[in-house]
Amino acid sequence: MPILTKPFTFVNVAASVDGKISDESRKQIKISGKEDFLRVDKLRAFADAIMVGIGTVISDNPSLTIKSEALRMERIRNGKTPNPLRVVVDSRLRTPSDSNVLNDEAETLLATTELADNERRAKLSKRARVEVFGNQKVDLKQLSRFLHDIGIERLMVEGGGTLINSMLREKLIDELNIYYGNIVIGGRTSPTIVDGSSFEFPIKLELLNFQRLGDGVYTRWRVLY
Amino acid sequence: MPILTKPFTFVNVAASVDGKISDESRKQIKISGKEDFLRVDKLRAFADAIMVGIGTVISDNPSLTIKSEALRMERIRNGKTPNPLRVVVDSRLRTPSDSNVLNDEAETLLATTELADNERRAKLSKRARVEVFGNQKVDLKQLSRFLHDIGIERLMVEGGGTLINSMLREKLIDELNIYYGNIVIGGRTSPTIVDGSSFEFPIKLELLNFQRLGDGVYTRWRVLY
Repeated sequence: MPILTKPFTFVNVAASVDGKISDESRKQIKISGKEDFLRVDKLRAFADAIMVGIGTVISDNPSLTIKSEALRMERIRNGKTPNPLRVVVDSRLRTPSDSNVLNDEAETLLATTELADNERRAKLSKRARVEVFGNQKVDLKQLSRFLHDIGIERLMVEGGGTLINSMLREKLIDELNIYYGNIVIGGRTSPTIVDGSSFEFPIKLELLNFQRLGDGVYTRWRVLY
Repeated sequence: MPILTKPFTFVNVAASVDGKISDESRKQIKISGKEDFLRVDKLRAFADAIMVGIGTVISDNPSLTIKSEALRMERIRNGKTPNPLRVVVDSRLRTPSDSNVLNDEAETLLATTELADNERRAKLSKRARVEVFGNQKVDLKQLSRFLHDIGIERLMVEGGGTLINSMLREKLIDELNIYYGNIVIGGRTSPTIVDGSSFEFPIKLELLNFQRLGDGVYTRWRVLY
């Protein structure tokens, strides 16, 4: 058996039935309802860290924190921080200084590269831990190993589609949680669950679970590399 | 109650979990297995006509016929043709003369516009009925009414994403049947279930049915305009 040098890593994403996570203008669209929000909140509470790409920080400005106080209290009782570590994959340190992901509700790691400007780095270092993983693109394998080494056992990836593509390409994703909301967004250039370039050979999955949730369908898949 | 002047119209499409129907090269990708093929064959047998866009004819060269002899026999027993009418939405008559959709297993209607070249029209008229619906784009409302008037009560739309977008925009689709196969295709420019431009307001759906089928998940949705 190989020695595990990365966290158990799962994606969570809500999409329209046509696989879009936003429309062509990249504005935020309500895809799921309260039943799914609760499911996502529980998944966040289960994770040791939550990862997003810089595109998601810029377009959605998420705080990536657990909304339910009960779930945060439960984590504290289990000797954890109230919220998981937030990880932003941000090769050029474009994370705005006033982003919600830098608020004081949780700790944040900005995973960057040598392309990052020194001044930005000094500034952002006041609000987050900044670490370099590679020259031009964040080396996701190196980052995963780093997260494992600092004690992250369960990593939740919340998008966007470019990061999910890169993580799949590096064989770093173990499971996909996909919620299909009851809407059609449409659009040839709307962001989808998995963007980037298409894989030369489609990645195979195994269906683990599916159920109706609110007005949509929740599905869970294991990635078979 | 409005007088029904269009067929009951349903989409059937198989996609990867990320909503792609093909990859960036538009090559055909096996998305579903034999359980889903049988489901699609039954849906075809239920339909009076099957519609596709010209892009699908060019990239997939489908014959759009019923594969099961038993299902064809059942149609004949019910006083129908063995196969449904095939309808290609083809504004410039680009359907290749040797397309499977023009074979002699079923009748074919090429829905075109005044942009179509007269020579192509004369040539293709030997193998199919050619009708003009509009100046530059096929007027889908006019086509739907025409199909209704020639006795088509149930119309199945098999894609691609551009045609599905246009049909939704014209409020001509009643139901979506979507099969999510157990693969990830990925790609920012891969064709998706609903391409074209994104809708200003997402189109709302109602979940009618969902079930595991083979290694994927079949879902059925009513369109709420």
